[in-house]
Amino acid sequence: MTNTRLFAFVGGESGTWRVTKSATIVGVPLDDVSRLSVVAAEDAAKITQAKWALKGITSNERYVIREEKQQLVSKQQGLGRSDATMAVMIPMSKNAAWWALTQDERRKIFEEQSHHNQIGMKFLPAIARKLYHCRDLSENQPFDFITWFEFAPEHECAFEQLLAELHATEEWRYVEREVQIWMTREISD
Amino acid sequence: MTNTRLFAFVGGESGTWRVTKSATIVGVPLDDVSRLSVVAAEDAAKITQAKWALKGITSNERYVIREEKQQLVSKQQGLGRSDATMAVMIPMSKNAAWWALTQDERRKIFEEQSHHNQIGMKFLPAIARKLYHCRDLSENQPFDFITWFEFAPEHECAFEQLLAELHATEEWRYVEREVQIWMTREISD
Repeated sequence: MTNTRLFAFVGGESGTWRVTKSATIVGVPLDDVSRLSVVAAEDAAKITQAKWALKGITSNERYVIREEKQQLVSKQQGLGRSDATMAVMIPMSKNAAWWALTQDERRKIFEEQSHHNQIGMKFLPAIARKLYHCRDLSENQPFDFITWFEFAPEHECAFEQLLAELHATEEWRYVEREVQIWMTREISD
Repeated sequence: MTNTRLFAFVGGESGTWRVTKSATIVGVPLDDVSRLSVVAAEDAAKITQAKWALKGITSNERYVIREEKQQLVSKQQGLGRSDATMAVMIPMSKNAAWWALTQDERRKIFEEQSHHNQIGMKFLPAIARKLYHCRDLSENQPFDFITWFEFAPEHECAFEQLLAELHATEEWRYVEREVQIWMTREISD
């Protein structure tokens, strides 16, 4: 799965991740599921009793400048660390007003006003983060992005703080759909 | 088709556009075809005897800043003008080095060094242009982008000049595949 860019997040009754709580912050909810699998998109159909499957693709960064990238790369750690047994998946969409902005306007709101990267940076390496793009996979995708956060249980309060800081930003005013799915890593039977 | 973002460019033996010449500038060629159709992606399968179908999706602009957008919007005209009977489709991919750059580095090469928008602007409204994104539709897309140019036959030399100017830029050093398909609009039988 290491060369894969296109993933499926499959909610249902099986998978490594057991759902502990879920919340709809804005917009339409997703159906409740008890477990979740993250697989290469081509393998999504093999998962039986799935309630839904969201696709996302990793891509080039859209807002990060070189200086920020260097800071991020030097501090961040990957997914799959053995002690990072908690994960939160946040599928999200922004509204039409956001997408009608130009690049400089989006960057300004994203970083100069909302300090999106700087907020994330504060919580590195404890809270690992990976972004998947959905919006341009096809028309009418249910979400624009999926962000996957992974951390050890002792960092749960820090993660709550990260979320609170991001929700308080100017950028978040453009969010029209957000769902949070909290999980813990467990071998499914 | 007006609400469609996802299109298919289908090369074969039918379609409004008759191919007059094609050229591979860099990389692997596309199979020769005599005609081309541009349709909503969901209708691509209805076209018989197709040799290939390339998908592309319109999306938010990645490099344009507000001032440039205002200039573009005030000068540009749409596709489908009755006198714009010539079209050139340019499917293109950039190399890994391009995609590893950060946003500020790509923007700098795109506009400050290569004047990509400013070059296109000089040829407005004569040469209409529409960009379709392919790279993040799925993994391993044959091209990163498709650009569609449309103009009246008297602007053919201007279009050649536009191409020459773009090919001379720093940005074009990152292109690893480029095919040009020149067409003229004709009712197919």
